Amino acid sequence: MVERLGKIRSFIFQQVQVDNQEIQRALTDFATSGGKMLRPAFCLMFADTITGKTVTDEKMLKIAATLELLHMATLIHDDIIDDSPLRHNQVTIQACYGKDVAVYTGDLLFTQFFELLIQLMNGTDYLMVNAQAMKRVLLGELQQMQNRFDEEIEVCTYLKSVEGKTAELFALAAQEGVYFSDGTPEQVMLAGEIGRKIGIAFQINDDILDYTGSQQQMDKPVLEDLGQGVYSLPLILAKEAAPEVFAPYLAKGRQITLAEVAKVAELVVSHGGIEAARELARELTLSALADIEKLPATPGRYQLAEITGSLLQRNH
Amino acid sequence: MVERLGKIRSFIFQQVQVDNQEIQRALTDFATSGGKMLRPAFCLMFADTITGKTVTDEKMLKIAATLELLHMATLIHDDIIDDSPLRHNQVTIQACYGKDVAVYTGDLLFTQFFELLIQLMNGTDYLMVNAQAMKRVLLGELQQMQNRFDEEIEVCTYLKSVEGKTAELFALAAQEGVYFSDGTPEQVMLAGEIGRKIGIAFQINDDILDYTGSQQQMDKPVLEDLGQGVYSLPLILAKEAAPEVFAPYLAKGRQITLAEVAKVAELVVSHGGIEAARELARELTLSALADIEKLPATPGRYQLAEITGSLLQRNH
Repeated sequence: MVERLGKIRSFIFQQVQVDNQEIQRALTDFATSGGKMLRPAFCLMFADTITGKTVTDEKMLKIAATLELLHMATLIHDDIIDDSPLRHNQVTIQACYGKDVAVYTGDLLFTQFFELLIQLMNGTDYLMVNAQAMKRVLLGELQQMQNRFDEEIEVCTYLKSVEGKTAELFALAAQEGVYFSDGTPEQVMLAGEIGRKIGIAFQINDDILDYTGSQQQMDKPVLEDLGQGVYSLPLILAKEAAPEVFAPYLAKGRQITLAEVAKVAELVVSHGGIEAARELARELTLSALADIEKLPATPGRYQLAEITGSLLQRNH
Repeated sequence: MVERLGKIRSFIFQQVQVDNQEIQRALTDFATSGGKMLRPAFCLMFADTITGKTVTDEKMLKIAATLELLHMATLIHDDIIDDSPLRHNQVTIQACYGKDVAVYTGDLLFTQFFELLIQLMNGTDYLMVNAQAMKRVLLGELQQMQNRFDEEIEVCTYLKSVEGKTAELFALAAQEGVYFSDGTPEQVMLAGEIGRKIGIAFQINDDILDYTGSQQQMDKPVLEDLGQGVYSLPLILAKEAAPEVFAPYLAKGRQITLAEVAKVAELVVSHGGIEAARELARELTLSALADIEKLPATPGRYQLAEITGSLLQRNH
């Protein structure tokens, strides 16, 4: 897998060549900063599972690369929205080169994503599947943006936003891995469901780490989301358990102080928000693992099950 | 033409429905604020010219609509870069709803642009033609951004940026009008050339209006570009005629005052920058008109020639 992901990384690196020095530098920094390339990895594991071998053909590697390109483009634009100074412990494009460069750099990546898709799958239904996935990712991001500082936010609103912003790309990765390995329509649909569950569980764990992780372990400064009014699952579940405890803090909205943010984080832990969120992630993971069992029993499937299990117990 | 453009506007209005109130309001405001829809209009005039009749079929109207969607998406992101408060005398999305909403609204329009393209032309070469056109538009915008406050900027740099940011979409409009009316490959290529010349001349005239128009006549506050370090053709040509006059002002870069900007504008006029720019626009227009003569002599062609001629003498 490491070797294939290395090839994908080199390919992305070639793809993002543009005739503009500043953008080129920004893109190169970003492309080499070393995200975990989870979406390409899942795509390939699903392909391996269906074919029963280690898929190394160029077309599949490039399809896996499109997933990372789309992910990169959305990250760059998200960092504008979040005003994030850091991502993967590197300075973000918007912090380093300004919002202006970040807007166009993200736009360029969207274009390169579409160019590559057209090269790979012109005339197939998967162009539209990709366009619609991209739209759902954006709508998920938008919903999260609009739910900021919403004291009344509920689990279902959170899950709806996560289904778009995170789970959609995992589902797409899984589906493409199966579809372009000539899986049956039923397998494609099952893969989409598995990807969606993995994606939601992944995001829940990410949100748990916002409360439990140290800054070194994490991609983003701890408690950043909370301070910016992004109330994620641990808080929502703790708030359900003890609404009166959280109400006075959340009523402060944007006026909340850093000390109060830290206090809310403590309360989330002491009111069982972390355990409750972990339980939901665990259920989703077990459900995904049960679904994975329905795929052909190949070495790829065992790896898929292993990574799915381990990913969701990560502490970094 | 008015009726067809009205249909296109309604269609765009339907297309930009999203399940998010704030974005929906931003998109609706923007879609109804009444740009001139020049790109769809040119596309249809080229279609009329080739077919010899008034093209009203739904597919061509939708193709024309894609051009406006792409144009709208780039405008929304441009306004973020420019920090523009106004566009078409309406408050811009970023000024009204914030940069965050503007980033995602533009992204959504890009997605809707691609969705519509895929519906209309999946399996044809024009998907890639569109993706590449979009890329050139972005690279043109980027180049302009990076040329800001460049005291040494020359005509060729200006033209290169304009070929991307403005002329590319006019060229695409012309080509698509011909291609999807079953024009010959030679006619498609000629149309692309005509569109490119019209686009450059159009942008030059727009840049002239930045110096000569009153704010009421213009879409954007007068002298906005100059204050932001976007040195356009009138200034570049005046500077060529009298470099020593402009050097002390341009050396100030971002420290230039509003009074000095106004002074530079006066100097551009008094050193013949406007006339010289107008002359270049006139030459391009005449060349475009000569090329238009090579297209089939149909009513569409006469309208195309008339609009091309009049557009380039506009004072608003």
